[in-house]
Amino acid sequence: MKRRIIILLFLLTIILIPAGVFAEDEIGALAQAIDTVWVLIAAFLVFFMQAGFAMVESGFTRAKNASNIIMKNMMDVSIGSLVFFMVGFGIMFGDDVAGLFGSTGFFGNITAESLGLSIPIEAFIIFQTVFAATAATIVSGAMAERTKFSSYVIYSFVISILIYPVVGHWIWGGGFLSEMGMIDFAGSTVVHSVGGWAALVGAAILGPRIGKFNKNGKPNAIPGHSITLGALGVFILWFGWFGFNPGSSLAGTDMGIGLIAMTTNLAAAAGGIVVMAITWIRYKKPDVSMTLNGVLGGLVGITAGCASVSMGGAIAIGAIAGAVVVLGVEFIEKVLKVDDPVGAVTVHGLCGAVGTILVGIFAVDGGLLYGGGFKQLGIQAVGVLAVAAWTLVTAGILFSVIKATVGLRVKNEDEIMGLDIGEHGTQAYADFHLKSADNIL
Amino acid sequence: MKRRIIILLFLLTIILIPAGVFAEDEIGALAQAIDTVWVLIAAFLVFFMQAGFAMVESGFTRAKNASNIIMKNMMDVSIGSLVFFMVGFGIMFGDDVAGLFGSTGFFGNITAESLGLSIPIEAFIIFQTVFAATAATIVSGAMAERTKFSSYVIYSFVISILIYPVVGHWIWGGGFLSEMGMIDFAGSTVVHSVGGWAALVGAAILGPRIGKFNKNGKPNAIPGHSITLGALGVFILWFGWFGFNPGSSLAGTDMGIGLIAMTTNLAAAAGGIVVMAITWIRYKKPDVSMTLNGVLGGLVGITAGCASVSMGGAIAIGAIAGAVVVLGVEFIEKVLKVDDPVGAVTVHGLCGAVGTILVGIFAVDGGLLYGGGFKQLGIQAVGVLAVAAWTLVTAGILFSVIKATVGLRVKNEDEIMGLDIGEHGTQAYADFHLKSADNIL
Amino acid sequence: MKRRIIILLFLLTIILIPAGVFAEDEIGALAQAIDTVWVLIAAFLVFFMQAGFAMVESGFTRAKNASNIIMKNMMDVSIGSLVFFMVGFGIMFGDDVAGLFGSTGFFGNITAESLGLSIPIEAFIIFQTVFAATAATIVSGAMAERTKFSSYVIYSFVISILIYPVVGHWIWGGGFLSEMGMIDFAGSTVVHSVGGWAALVGAAILGPRIGKFNKNGKPNAIPGHSITLGALGVFILWFGWFGFNPGSSLAGTDMGIGLIAMTTNLAAAAGGIVVMAITWIRYKKPDVSMTLNGVLGGLVGITAGCASVSMGGAIAIGAIAGAVVVLGVEFIEKVLKVDDPVGAVTVHGLCGAVGTILVGIFAVDGGLLYGGGFKQLGIQAVGVLAVAAWTLVTAGILFSVIKATVGLRVKNEDEIMGLDIGEHGTQAYADFHLKSADNIL
Repeated sequence: MKRRIIILLFLLTIILIPAGVFAEDEIGALAQAIDTVWVLIAAFLVFFMQAGFAMVESGFTRAKNASNIIMKNMMDVSIGSLVFFMVGFGIMFGDDVAGLFGSTGFFGNITAESLGLSIPIEAFIIFQTVFAATAATIVSGAMAERTKFSSYVIYSFVISILIYPVVGHWIWGGGFLSEMGMIDFAGSTVVHSVGGWAALVGAAILGPRIGKFNKNGKPNAIPGHSITLGALGVFILWFGWFGFNPGSSLAGTDMGIGLIAMTTNLAAAAGGIVVMAITWIRYKKPDVSMTLNGVLGGLVGITAGCASVSMGGAIAIGAIAGAVVVLGVEFIEKVLKVDDPVGAVTVHGLCGAVGTILVGIFAVDGGLLYGGGFKQLGIQAVGVLAVAAWTLVTAGILFSVIKATVGLRVKNEDEIMGLDIGEHGTQAYADFHLKSADNIL
Repeated sequence: MKRRIIILLFLLTIILIPAGVFAEDEIGALAQAIDTVWVLIAAFLVFFMQAGFAMVESGFTRAKNASNIIMKNMMDVSIGSLVFFMVGFGIMFGDDVAGLFGSTGFFGNITAESLGLSIPIEAFIIFQTVFAATAATIVSGAMAERTKFSSYVIYSFVISILIYPVVGHWIWGGGFLSEMGMIDFAGSTVVHSVGGWAALVGAAILGPRIGKFNKNGKPNAIPGHSITLGALGVFILWFGWFGFNPGSSLAGTDMGIGLIAMTTNLAAAAGGIVVMAITWIRYKKPDVSMTLNGVLGGLVGITAGCASVSMGGAIAIGAIAGAVVVLGVEFIEKVLKVDDPVGAVTVHGLCGAVGTILVGIFAVDGGLLYGGGFKQLGIQAVGVLAVAAWTLVTAGILFSVIKATVGLRVKNEDEIMGLDIGEHGTQAYADFHLKSADNIL
Repeated sequence: MKRRIIILLFLLTIILIPAGVFAEDEIGALAQAIDTVWVLIAAFLVFFMQAGFAMVESGFTRAKNASNIIMKNMMDVSIGSLVFFMVGFGIMFGDDVAGLFGSTGFFGNITAESLGLSIPIEAFIIFQTVFAATAATIVSGAMAERTKFSSYVIYSFVISILIYPVVGHWIWGGGFLSEMGMIDFAGSTVVHSVGGWAALVGAAILGPRIGKFNKNGKPNAIPGHSITLGALGVFILWFGWFGFNPGSSLAGTDMGIGLIAMTTNLAAAAGGIVVMAITWIRYKKPDVSMTLNGVLGGLVGITAGCASVSMGGAIAIGAIAGAVVVLGVEFIEKVLKVDDPVGAVTVHGLCGAVGTILVGIFAVDGGLLYGGGFKQLGIQAVGVLAVAAWTLVTAGILFSVIKATVGLRVKNEDEIMGLDIGEHGTQAYADFHLKSADNIL
């Protein structure tokens, strides 16, 4: 009997054990599939944010420039997709040189293995591409209604191929800020403040729209042409942010993605409510477009720390970002005298910087409020300052060179008539009677 | 030899068997990952329905009130996100008290384990949050173009913190209707009819818009300002419903999700076609905005039974819901004399109730047509009536108290000039010549 | 001791080995779940393309016809969903008859097993349904602003029940082109060129809009009423295409989906950039609506080969498709004298055909450039021609019969006044002063 048991055991083991071994390989493949599906869907949602930016930027500016800003947004993502794929990605994720940039230069030499990724390299590059395109597209809003299309194309090319990828390398590609331990999970600084600082220096060098400031320097409100499209854009951006933040886990098998979705949503909500409340008190009526920007500010603010803070911390960060929106818009306009038609500098630059720094305070692991002292806070501040300096200087040089060569600004008559006609020979709303047309005729 | 075989066996077993054991744990983790990815993406789609509601409600009302309704929608989701997280969730899913409400009060005390969930608690709460926000946002359409913004904020707060979570507890949180065996898979009753009944009592207490009814009680059509935005909203809602219904499986490993996607789509299609046909016959021309509402009615109607009926049953439910849309809109307007600018009471309240009851007829397991007798039908009817009673009474008290204190309605001059200027000091379409502006000047 | 070891071994084996065996079954179930989640989410994204088509087609035509085109799009998807489910699916995927069509007739007889699918049959049918609806909806743009609604409903019914499913059977359902080895991964030909050829013959039989051509045959530009909505539509379509192409893997466990997302995105970007450049050179100013069509052309072009070509090949195909857009629009309008208000024939028909043929050149496995000779190229060309012939003939018969019976075109006064009023008794923009209304009064 003993013998028979042994033989039975032997046969059972021979037949059945390989199933377990084989399973182990298949389990790895399934985990990779889940991660890949998650990252791709997140990338698609982030791509869709381009529609959100296009609607926000066109809705909050005048009808006579709507086609032009649409075209700029469409080119941001088109040019960005090509040049980031061909060169930018290599600078961002290639072999590190002195902590400053990647030296691989071209995409082809980088593999999933060399980056230690669980997903195919193509899934990673599409995810990174839509992030690069986001950084690029922020500037068009701040420079809207007066920038030459040709100059804008040059800007869009340079930010996608150089300015953004270098910052990306510093923080996400193994560069010096990453070595220091800076936390910027989904890009409050990498993506949003890069766009915001470039927008600031661009709008400053470009100068304000005709009629924005009186001779005594007092700003005039220039209302946008469609609050509904602008609001649709904000809803699309909020929706897309659920790809932006939770997707930055790069893994659907990372069970922290639920928390990230919650922190993202709570910060957006808190940002909107705080701005509604502040504007209600300050201006006697709750301001619609400012509140929409408050939601965006909350989203930008939480992006750095969405995986590091508690849900209560997310509400606090969103609320602070909301306050920054109201104060920031006034500061940019009234103190700096910079004309930013959609508030992009405040929403992306200031809220991005503040949100990144607040990680040093609210991070559950290492934040000031959780007994972590000032170390993380200091690192965050260094990162924010380094990125601001790099972006302001390089974008400043870029816009200055463009201004001195091909020119940055359309002719006054084109600005008055609208960039749609001046730059593209078209009208966005050919069937409608427009007030801006009254002023021309 | 025998000894060697035994030793070999021993070694093989020691080395290889743990792979199988380990695999078992990993398989559980992968199933959890698939479920979490599915629930989160579904939640994101349901979130995006907020954009759909904003477009439908603004598109089907007048341009002079577009910013106001946008602002109400944005605050529904913002306020709803915060208060449902902080309190409503605990009332909905906390420890049951007498089948009526959850006593946990605050979110923090509820865990995935206590709810028996396969997914992280944060993934569940974001999914539930966007459902709560959907219930809240339905009312703004029915009360559009005349409700004070401040009063609306109070309403939005109360429905998210109390009225909706209690119903949610009854049907989804272990309350008495759940104990009875009521079927409301994704919320025809929990979400839509709660919104619809609150909208009915709100619109009734508020009274009609100026000019809606002649002195003899005959209603006048007040056309919306953008059928394209309204239609976009319907497409977004249809899209988001694929998160709403299939996502309510709470599991991507539940292979019934394909059927739910099909029943959802077929009911929407049938609702639209039936309304097109009825309006073509009744009014000689196929009515566009009514057909769009027919699609929504089909979607609301199938929501309760989407996982319980056959594909043929889904077509039947969608078609019936379509008929309810046409008759309901006429009934609300001509018989009840209630002014519901976007048809929200009919689409969400009536179609939600009818769809819930029809589960008792079309459910493959237990439905009247499948030999199940009247038992399920009776349970469904009891559930519909209980929810209608609760919502009409509590929302009735709420709106009456608001009316008696801060007031529910804007001043007549603000209503005529538009709530955008009156309540927010802005215009949605500052660049366009509007007919409503002609009437004012 | 030996005995004890044996007993221990025995117990260990009995207890632990089943885990490995059980795991094997569970792994299969998990793979199915990942595939199903992926296919469903892709289907939802493809569904959302309906919103994109509605926005593109209404935005690029006049305000007075916007409700009508919305209604046509809504009915395409509604009617298509019902009749494709009931009959079309059986013709497409039923038992093959002579390589020409499926004989199963009705959906119910086809199972996941009979099709060899890893996913539930309902998940497959919803995915196929949204593809059928896409083919149907292409035509409405080309025949916009002058086609009777009742006639359009008949067309939409026939293409969904017969014309499209037969082509689908040829290439995807086991028909003769599939047997020949034709590559059309996601439907450049199956979906887009079927829609494009039907649009061509429909627009030709229908005749141009009043005022499109001068007496000497010179075409006049008739600008659309909202570039912003049109652009939003393009962004939505680009977004939805990430379901269309990567989703056509039918498997989230297929690790080629990352590459497909990349080829799709690069081709779209290249198409847009090339059109921007060509129009800038040819017309002195970069053309906005043409560039938007360039993006769509790139997307249509890459759809056939998205899984077969390299990323460089995708850029080439997108760029070529962009050139085809500019030349094709001029050819259709100036040479064929066909009035296609939104460029649908070019974008879907020509770019679909060219993109399908280019697979024979750029396919990494079997393409001309990769040493594969002319074999694949020949097969692709045969497929394109066969589908063009079938669609032009059947759609030609269909539209001729409609024209001879119920009539294809609205009365001249309805066309001038707008189809919204003439066909539906409504206005899309009741609050706005329209220029087209000036012409009428």
